Parts: sequence; C-alpha cells; structure tokens
Amino acid sequence: MSHNTFGHLFRVTTWGESHGPSLGCVVDGCPPGIRLTLSEIQSWMDKRKPGQSRFVTQRREDDVVKILSGVMLDEDGETMITTGTPISMLIENTDQRSKDYGDIARRYRPGHADFTYDLKYGIRDYRGGGRSSARETAARVAAGAVARKVLPDLVVRAALVQIGKHKINRANWDWDQVNENPFFAPDPQIVPVWEDYLDTIRKSGSSIGAVIEVVAENVPAGLGAPVYGKLDQDIASLLMSINAVKGVEIGEGFASAELSGEENADEMRMGNDGVPLFLSNHAGGILGGISTGQPIVARFAIKPTSSILTERQSIDADGNNVEVRTKGRHDPCVGIRAVPIGEAMVACAIVDHYLRDRGQTGRLR
Amino acid sequence: MSHNTFGHLFRVTTWGESHGPSLGCVVDGCPPGIRLTLSEIQSWMDKRKPGQSRFVTQRREDDVVKILSGVMLDEDGETMITTGTPISMLIENTDQRSKDYGDIARRYRPGHADFTYDLKYGIRDYRGGGRSSARETAARVAAGAVARKVLPDLVVRAALVQIGKHKINRANWDWDQVNENPFFAPDPQIVPVWEDYLDTIRKSGSSIGAVIEVVAENVPAGLGAPVYGKLDQDIASLLMSINAVKGVEIGEGFASAELSGEENADEMRMGNDGVPLFLSNHAGGILGGISTGQPIVARFAIKPTSSILTERQSIDADGNNVEVRTKGRHDPCVGIRAVPIGEAMVACAIVDHYLRDRGQTGRLR
Amino acid sequence: MSHNTFGHLFRVTTWGESHGPSLGCVVDGCPPGIRLTLSEIQSWMDKRKPGQSRFVTQRREDDVVKILSGVMLDEDGETMITTGTPISMLIENTDQRSKDYGDIARRYRPGHADFTYDLKYGIRDYRGGGRSSARETAARVAAGAVARKVLPDLVVRAALVQIGKHKINRANWDWDQVNENPFFAPDPQIVPVWEDYLDTIRKSGSSIGAVIEVVAENVPAGLGAPVYGKLDQDIASLLMSINAVKGVEIGEGFASAELSGEENADEMRMGNDGVPLFLSNHAGGILGGISTGQPIVARFAIKPTSSILTERQSIDADGNNVEVRTKGRHDPCVGIRAVPIGEAMVACAIVDHYLRDRGQTGRLR
Amino acid sequence: MSHNTFGHLFRVTTWGESHGPSLGCVVDGCPPGIRLTLSEIQSWMDKRKPGQSRFVTQRREDDVVKILSGVMLDEDGETMITTGTPISMLIENTDQRSKDYGDIARRYRPGHADFTYDLKYGIRDYRGGGRSSARETAARVAAGAVARKVLPDLVVRAALVQIGKHKINRANWDWDQVNENPFFAPDPQIVPVWEDYLDTIRKSGSSIGAVIEVVAENVPAGLGAPVYGKLDQDIASLLMSINAVKGVEIGEGFASAELSGEENADEMRMGNDGVPLFLSNHAGGILGGISTGQPIVARFAIKPTSSILTERQSIDADGNNVEVRTKGRHDPCVGIRAVPIGEAMVACAIVDHYLRDRGQTGRLR
Repeated sequence: MSHNTFGHLFRVTTWGESHGPSLGCVVDGCPPGIRLTLSEIQSWMDKRKPGQSRFVTQRREDDVVKILSGVMLDEDGETMITTGTPISMLIENTDQRSKDYGDIARRYRPGHADFTYDLKYGIRDYRGGGRSSARETAARVAAGAVARKVLPDLVVRAALVQIGKHKINRANWDWDQVNENPFFAPDPQIVPVWEDYLDTIRKSGSSIGAVIEVVAENVPAGLGAPVYGKLDQDIASLLMSINAVKGVEIGEGFASAELSGEENADEMRMGNDGVPLFLSNHAGGILGGISTGQPIVARFAIKPTSSILTERQSIDADGNNVEVRTKGRHDPCVGIRAVPIGEAMVACAIVDHYLRDRGQTGRLR
Repeated sequence: MSHNTFGHLFRVTTWGESHGPSLGCVVDGCPPGIRLTLSEIQSWMDKRKPGQSRFVTQRREDDVVKILSGVMLDEDGETMITTGTPISMLIENTDQRSKDYGDIARRYRPGHADFTYDLKYGIRDYRGGGRSSARETAARVAAGAVARKVLPDLVVRAALVQIGKHKINRANWDWDQVNENPFFAPDPQIVPVWEDYLDTIRKSGSSIGAVIEVVAENVPAGLGAPVYGKLDQDIASLLMSINAVKGVEIGEGFASAELSGEENADEMRMGNDGVPLFLSNHAGGILGGISTGQPIVARFAIKPTSSILTERQSIDADGNNVEVRTKGRHDPCVGIRAVPIGEAMVACAIVDHYLRDRGQTGRLR
Repeated sequence: MSHNTFGHLFRVTTWGESHGPSLGCVVDGCPPGIRLTLSEIQSWMDKRKPGQSRFVTQRREDDVVKILSGVMLDEDGETMITTGTPISMLIENTDQRSKDYGDIARRYRPGHADFTYDLKYGIRDYRGGGRSSARETAARVAAGAVARKVLPDLVVRAALVQIGKHKINRANWDWDQVNENPFFAPDPQIVPVWEDYLDTIRKSGSSIGAVIEVVAENVPAGLGAPVYGKLDQDIASLLMSINAVKGVEIGEGFASAELSGEENADEMRMGNDGVPLFLSNHAGGILGGISTGQPIVARFAIKPTSSILTERQSIDADGNNVEVRTKGRHDPCVGIRAVPIGEAMVACAIVDHYLRDRGQTGRLR
Repeated sequence: MSHNTFGHLFRVTTWGESHGPSLGCVVDGCPPGIRLTLSEIQSWMDKRKPGQSRFVTQRREDDVVKILSGVMLDEDGETMITTGTPISMLIENTDQRSKDYGDIARRYRPGHADFTYDLKYGIRDYRGGGRSSARETAARVAAGAVARKVLPDLVVRAALVQIGKHKINRANWDWDQVNENPFFAPDPQIVPVWEDYLDTIRKSGSSIGAVIEVVAENVPAGLGAPVYGKLDQDIASLLMSINAVKGVEIGEGFASAELSGEENADEMRMGNDGVPLFLSNHAGGILGGISTGQPIVARFAIKPTSSILTERQSIDADGNNVEVRTKGRHDPCVGIRAVPIGEAMVACAIVDHYLRDRGQTGRLR
C-alpha cells in the first residue's frame, strides 16, 4: 500500500497483522539525546492492551515493547538515550486463535473491511482482520510514547465522553477519574450507567459506538500552517486513520455551524504578565491551522464493531448469499480502547509540527 | 511552510495570496492524453466565484483560469490534450481593496488566523488574510476540475444542508435544485427560510456557520488502504484543510456513536446481475479505508467567519487591548461558497487513490 | 509525472515547456522574514540565459523573473520580504520558433528523449523537447537564487573544467576569471583553446560534452544524514536531474577507487583557535553523508547535445527508418550553460538540509 | 533523521545499527499476490554476507532473514504470498565485538563519519560506526530481493570492474564467472592479479577503493520521468546512498564529456519484428530520464575504508590531537561486498518506477 508512514519530520511507519508473529513500528526523525525508559513506554501500552475488563475483548496480550534500534544504554543500564537514528519497536502477538475465524474465512462481515480488502488486493489475511485489525494500533501507542518524550511539557490526555446515547455530564469532568474506571470516563456518575448498558450489549453479543475527546495542553503556540499541513488537518487525518473512526471535530466542531461570528469569536486581552489571554476556546486551540497556545481539543466518533453474534445477511467470496455471525472475541465498544490511541495520534502530530516549525522558522528551542 | 502540496500521484501545489497579483496551482501527475477545455474548467470556477448573490462577499472576481503548461492544443484549436507534464494554472486577482483592511493591519481579529500567523512567522500579509484567505480555494477548484477529467464517469456533487440551526428536510432532496438557488440547497423549501435568516445576519454585519454534504458517485470500488492513506482519511484531511472547517464526517459520522452493530451493518446480497448489492450505506461508501463502490458521503462543518461588524475585544501587535470590528466585504455565511470547494477536494482525493491503486495493484484501467 | 518537486522542507516545484507561454516554479518552505530583491535573483538568471556568446544557442530570452506570491514589499518599495508562504515565480517564453522543429515532429533524434517520451506518454510536445528542454532549468536558477538568501554566508560557485578532451590546468584556478570568459573557465589559459575547439564544433554543426565543478563554501558543518538523505546523495540526485548529465562525483569521486585508505584519509588537527582543522579534503566536504564544514566539491559530466546537423539513422513515430538532422538553434556545448544550474541545485540541497537539521536537532540558528 | 525511507510507491524503510540486537527494513507498497520463498531472499543475502573469503571482514554473520508481516503461507507451507501490507524483515546481529572499538570510542577516524556524526547529533554509537555501518546494507539486499519478485523477468546483475589501478579487460566479460571468484569479477584473468594485490593490502592493514558496474536487463521501456524523478536520477541517488560511494555514472558517464554528438548518438533502426532497435547504448538504457528498453548500465565508485591499521593524525572528542589506528575487523576492499548492494538498489529503483508508471499512465500490466 506504500502508505503506512505518517509524519513529515517525525515519521512513523507501522507494520504487522493481528495474527502474524509480531507487529511494530519504526520511528524515524526522533531528535537525538532524548532520555527514555522502557517502563515509560510500557505504561502507555498498558492503557491500550486488551483483556483488562469485561468490557473489552478477552484476547490477552501483554503488549511488551522491545526497542531494537535508535538508542544507546546510559551508564545506569536502564535509561536509553536516542541517537537520532530510526527507533524500531517490536511487539509480539502471543494470543492468536485463528480457529475462531475459520468459519468467516470466506464470508464478508457486513460493515467490515473484509469485502473491500478482498476486492482490492485479491487476497486477504482474514484472521482477525489482518492488517485492518485494531492490533495495529499498539504500534501507534508505542510511537506516541516516544513523541511525548520529545516535548516533555506536553500533556496529551483523552477521555470517553459518549457511549451510544449516554453522554457524560461535562460539569462533572475530572481528569483524575479517567484512569479510575474501565471506560476512561471523566465523569464518575456515568460509570454505573455505562456498566449496565455495556453489560446488556455484551451479553446480547452486540456492539455500540462511542465518542472520545482528546485534550493537549502546553502545546507551543505557532505550530501548523495556514493552508495545508494545518495542525488540525493533520490531527484529523491521524484520528480518521484509527480503525472504525467515522468523524472528527476540532473545538466546537459541528456545533460551530450553529454559532454566530460573535458567539464563536474567542476574544483576547493582555494578561498582567504581558501574555495574551483568550477569554474562550471555541477554536479548540487552533486558528487558521496554527496552534494558539490554548489547549487543543479534538473529538472523534467510533462506529460499533461489525463483529457481532447476531446473524446478518451477506455474501461470500464465491458470490453466494450467506448469513454471517462472528464468534471470536470482540469489543462490545471498541471506543474504550481507542482512548490511548487518540492520545498517541495527537501527540505525534504535535511533535511532527514542532520539528517542522523549528526547521522552517528557527523559532523554537 | 513547505506544505502547500497534497496528493501522492495526483499532486496539487497551490500558491498565492488574496491581495497579490494572482494565485494558482500546479497539478502534477495528471495522466497524459486527457482532453479538456478551458470552458469546462471555468464552469466549475464560476460556481465558487464571489459576488454572485447578496449572500456572499461583494468582492468581484472573474476567476478566469489560464493554463500555462502541461497541455497541447488539438487540431480544433480549442480542446487541450494533457501531455503528462505539470499543469500550471493561474488566476488573476482583479478586485483588491487593501484600504479596507488598513485599520486592522495591526489588530488581531478574534477567531482569525491573524494572531497565530504573526506569532509563527513574525510577518503577515494582513490584507484579506493573505495566504489564509479563501481566495486560495479558487486554485483548488481549478485542480478539482482537472481531476474530474481523469475519471470521466465520476460524479462529485455537494449541497448545503444546514445554516445555523436551520437544516434541510432530507425527504425533499433534489439534486436538480442545487444550482437553482443561491445557497446550493437541495431542498427548495428551505430556500426562503435561509433567505430571510441570512438577510438578518447580513444586515446586522454578523455571520453564521454551515454544514456541507459531498456525495461522490461512480467511484471505482477498491480505492484506499486499510490503515493509513485510507480514502476516508485523505478526504477528511483535504476537507479539514479548507478554511474555517471544524469538523468532518463520513457516512453516519458522529451519529454512528449511537448505533448498534446490527443497525450500522450494511448488509449485502448478490444482485441478479452477479454484482454485490449493499442494502444500506451507513458506511458512506468506505469500509476499512477502502471504497465499496457505493456513493461516498462526506460532510463538513464550517464556522462563521470571524470578520464581523460588531466590536470584539482583542489585542494588537503591540500588546495593547483594543476593540476590533472588520469593515471590508465579507461572506455572512462562508459555507455557501465552500460547496464547490468540498467537491473539488473529494474529486482530487479519489483520483489520487485511483492512480495509486492502478500502480500498486495493476487492477484498474 | 507527479515528480516535479524536490526538497523536503525547502521544496521546489517546477513547471513549463520550452514552447509554452511561460515556465516557472513554486518555492515552498522558504523561511519568513528574508529580504531579497528582483535584481539579485535576475543577476543569477542572466548567467544562465541563452544568446550571450556564439558558443551557446542563439535563442534570445530575457528570462525576466516575476514573483507572484510569497513576499511583501518593504517600505523602500523595492526590497521584498518573504512571508513564509509559497513563492511563485514566472518566466515568460518570448522567442519560440516552432517552425524550426517542424521536420522532426515525428522523427526521433538519436540520443534524445523524443523516443522514450512518446513511448511512455503516447503524446509529446516535440517543440524544443517540450518538458525535456533545458528551458526548464531557468526555473531552477530562480529557486537557487532564493535558496542563497536563506543562508547569506553560503557561497556556491561553479566552473567549467573540461570540454571534450581539453581540461583546465588546476594550478591556474582563479575564481575571478570565471565570469571573464564565455565558458565560466577558471583557467584563463584554456580559454583560447576552447574558443578554437568550439568554433570548429559549432561550424560543423556538431556538439561536445563537458564537465562542471561546483564548490560550496561556508557550509554549516553537520548537514545531512548517515544513511539516506545523505547530503551527497541529495546533491547527486539534483545534479543528475539536470538535462544531459550522465555522471556525478563528490570529492575524489571515481579517482578514490585508486586511492589507499592512507592516501584518502583527511587527517585532522586542532587549530590554535580550538577549531578542528582538516589537513586535506579528499572527501569533498562530506563524510558519512554529513557536511564537515570544509568546502563541498561536486562534479558532473554533461553529454553532447543530441541535436546536431549531421544526419543520423533513426526511426519515426510510424516505424519507418529515417535519417534525422536537427536544424533549430542549439548549444554546441550545453555544458557551458549548465554551470549556473549546477550552482542552483547545490544551493537548494544545502538549504533544504539546513532547515531539516534545524528542525530535527534544534542545533542551528 | 526521518530520512530512512526511499521509494515512492515501492517504499523501503531501513533501521538498525551494527551493534544493536538486530536490523531490518519495512517494504511498503509491494503488490499483493506475489509468491516468494525465504530461500530465494536468503540466496541474495548470502552474496553480501561477510566472512566468505580472506578479502572481506572476518566478522561472521549468517544474515538470516525473518519475515514478520505482509505475507501469508501458501498451502505448500513454504511459499509465501504477499498480501499488499507492509513486509517487515528482520536480521539479527550475532557477531558483535564491541571491545574491538573501545579505544576509538572518543577518537575520530580520519575519513570516517565519526566526526560529523558527533558534530550533528552530539551522541554517537561508535561501535562499528553505529548507523553508518555497512551492516545496514543487509536490509537493502533483503528489500531488493523482494523487488526482484515484483518484476520476475527483470535481471539485475553487478560485477566488480576495478580495484585500485587494476581494471578488468572488458573483452573477457563473462557473467558466468562473476560468482566463481571472491571478487565478483567478470574477467577470470583479473582474479589472480586482484588476489595478489589485495593480499598485500590486507597484510599491511591498508585498504583500497573499487568500481562496481550494475547492468539491468529486461527493463520495461518507458520507466522514469523527463525532469525530476528521472530513472537515472533515482538510481544515482540510491547508489550514492551506499556507504563509501563517491561517484555514480550512467552509460558513458564521465567519458561522455569527451564524445561528440555524432559519437554519442545511439542510432536506431526498425527490427524485422517491428521492434525498434538501438545500434549502440552510450546512453546506458536511459534517455531523458526514461528507460529505452535497452540494458540499464550504471557504475559507482567506492572509496577505501577509513578503518586502517596505519596510524593517522586526528583529534578526539575532547579536542586533543591524537593518533588513530583502527584494529577491529575490516574489509581491505569494501567495494567487493558492495556488488550485491548495488544490484539491490537498482532493482528497487526500477520496481518503484514500474509501479509509478503503471499508476500514472495505466500503460503497464
């Protein structure tokens, strides 16, 4: 496909299928002299890995990251220092049950990439969706973990804000709650609601969509470009590249269609410290494609997984009408595990623009 | 910025500011032997050009396209044939009134790129927003017109579906109506509503957001890639690169968050002609990043323009608190003129993937 | 062809044929705030333009550059300041005599791109070689002139060192002589020899090859990369992209095949000022793909133009055996005019790496 | 460095240092449905691997390639079929003796990338040159082996044509001899000469340069582009990216500087079978950047390795004057092992252009 690389100066190439021996990525363009540890990277991987609650796939993967190149060990024997060369990271697939997929080997799951993949390539690794599997996103989280080290002050956090029709109450937003529940919910009051709701979904072998919100703080002002290579464009592109994503918003997003110029204008005043202050953030931290220095706010919508137990009408590779139901082990709400992935994508986009901007304007250190 | 190029095999580079002598683009990668005429290209330009109704900026531009390279004249002296070399197109800026902008030369319009542009580049062509001006999109429409000729059967159409809180009634959708009203509205019954509403907005010197829907038909099945360089990812990226866009959706978009796997599954049956049939199109014509052959449906949200007559609090380049109101000539609803631009972006994305796919799979003719 | 762009952060896209109305380039990624004047750019154009002596084509082109975007006029009304947006430059073709080419419209000139171009594209602008014409290089020189302004201390100079079997005497090398003769010869003693030799070539309607040497001084140390995107790799790529170039060397080049490790080693000593000194420069200023801070030395070989008056055996587009002789107006030694082009390519490569390095290492200002 | 990827549709990203646990590459864009076996790939690896004669480094590496993604096993359990997804290949480093390098950890080997690498990155994996090590080229050979499978009729062969001042006699050229001697020499009569010569070099701990010639046959005509992305440009770029290469030639190369237009013209005649015939191949199979269908002939010059036993003057990382001699295990003539690497680079360039051309012109199958 020759399109498994993203980024311009901070470039990430991912590879691997869900049922191959391993998957991974090559992070090319990471500046030299950055100190990182495997445990730091692993901590991000653990947020994404499956099997952590009854609300996600029961596939068990440790998602242990190995770094194969691009670093040297420091005297302490634990800290690694980047050398400026490509950082190759590998994650082994340990829990593959191909048999689970046997009966859908030639049947197309409605709403799944099966059909289009076969159509385009004429061959398909049907096991777990092959390259289309969410397993690929493990490599993105590893790349995002490296990106975070390039801008140590950068804070990129995400939370689940909607499952089905059940939305959080923004008045209750508390970042400290996000890692205290199996949904990355920032609103503790929604947790029992989602628990009951997802138990029903799960037991019926169904699935449901979700919305994730990503917030990036301490983003240097001035990152991006006015026309193409806009920071919001690249964030939208990377979020849309995550499996099952069908929509992306920045700031007010679709709500801005209903706003007047007066309502949408983020007014400004000089702060006492001589730093410009914005009195609101409808723009989501990006104006004309360039970061304002305010928090960057992005949201993305995830469709329900197409792998469900209920029978659905479809066809097979031989052109016969068939009924399809997917046994296997699946996520009733794939949106949950998309939370750390969204963080990783936004972190990578910001760091890539940071390096570009430093190159073109010599403005940053 | 070195990011004024998009596309991989069908590559478009645009250049130009709103108040320079001209603007244009270079279309690189257009296949040889394609026959086109200036009038065909011009017909698309005319859809976008300003001053066509009281609901858009009164700036008057003919937006006449000149082709400077990449074609040879046919015997008929009118038809041009592409030679496979870069097609350079130029559009002159004829109606620039810099004086209109004098008083905001050093003041930052809230919600506008003024502030971030100065912040990043330390210099800014304040006249009409310089590079950030919607004038740049004229070049995109010209590129899109060439893209359409590469896939003659491809039909890419767009319509305005929402202004402020006023949405169209989808039951009334009629493509034949779209060019019969100043809003590109597919629902004739919404036209008087929007007229009254926008007159109020316009007279008060305010502005309002909008939502545009783009539909591409006769898209070859199998275009795109499963992970990155997804067709929907590239469409989202290009739509998000249009000025003032804050959100992008494919198919059900954000609504898919509320759907179950059963509801969202586009079931399939074999047609009598042996062609697979989809019984619905929640996916918007793209599954796993690859086109299904169904119509591709994308929507994008446009924020209200920040250039309004009402005073807003802001700061100037010297760090003083100021009040800003923009006189100039502006669009009460920039979303209207974004309709042909959205079409152009989707056409370019599809053609780029068509050429990539033909290269990598040798599947297409 | 979708390959008319070079550079990664300092990106140049060229367009145009020899017999279209004009040709030009878009320089994308030029940093903001750089001051330049048209006359500075024009001075480089004048070095390349044809018709300046009896030893180059008699086609007369003023090669006047127009800047259409990417700059603002300074108060002085003459100096332009780059805004960080794409710089679009246009050069009109004024002296086209298509009739000269009439009789070779369907005949392939041996050694010319005619045959391969038709073969690939199925259509060809035979007039002056269309896109394959050396006219295209005018756009490169304009881009190189902008690149020089990004690194004001950078000095990139080239000279002709060989025509046919007649080589200069390096002991006589004098940069001040280069612009004092029609050959860009650094050795005054070779001038009369080349004059007599080229008069003979010219009168017989023949042509001859040449070798050009480019030397870049004040190149920041540390530009490039160890494996790909080596500085010498990118210089070689750009020099090889010049029409008629068949070979490229860095430093000792092919002569290094005959050197021992001892002979080829550029030994080092610390200078009294604490700056490392190299005692020789066999490497041509680049070690392991990265600049050493020494002068960068590159050479390239230009084949004789295939447009000659002597009849040669060939075929035509209909598959008939024919004899071909090219009337038209041609360069007896195209290598002469390649001198400023080689300078431009090396300047662009160095500036592109300067911006990349600043981005990735934050090392440069 | 973010420049460890080459190719446009057939894209190769390499990673790894000489003294890390492993190195490898990701081949992105390989068409689906291609059948290959590990043993086929291994056969090319074996040509490059060290320790095969006394004339190359005694480091022992099996260079066994593991394929981690992008393929499915065929029924036969041995043949792999590409799926169109990224092919990740890994090669373990088994024989690393870091201690050998201890004493040059802080000393710069004259003529080596040590100095420039430290200068740019401020940190360096001195062991075996880190990323600058020729070990990296193992990954290129693996990528080239995959490229060959994309165009099964393509034959890319290389031979060593010069060591020091000792050149082969072209009259004796016999491809069958190339693999019958430790030098990849096509001329059996040069073998004893080179043996004696290299024994002397080796015993004195010195090193010497070389020239390699690559010939590609059955190259589809029409690959390349007239200006940038020329086939010869991309070949030159990739050959120049090989460690220690200082010069590249196509066809007559530098010799063309001494040829007249008459001598250099490759005349044509229609063959009896209606296929155009070239009566010579001075162009080396490429005219105007586009392949003619004749064999492509490229040569590249390799400098002597800078790792020699003789003491040389240099400085260390602390700025002291020092004497440097490299113990370690090195190649007296690195040019020998560059033969299969040159083949791989040319194969990758041709396949990349084949896919591009198929995409843009739809001309190829």
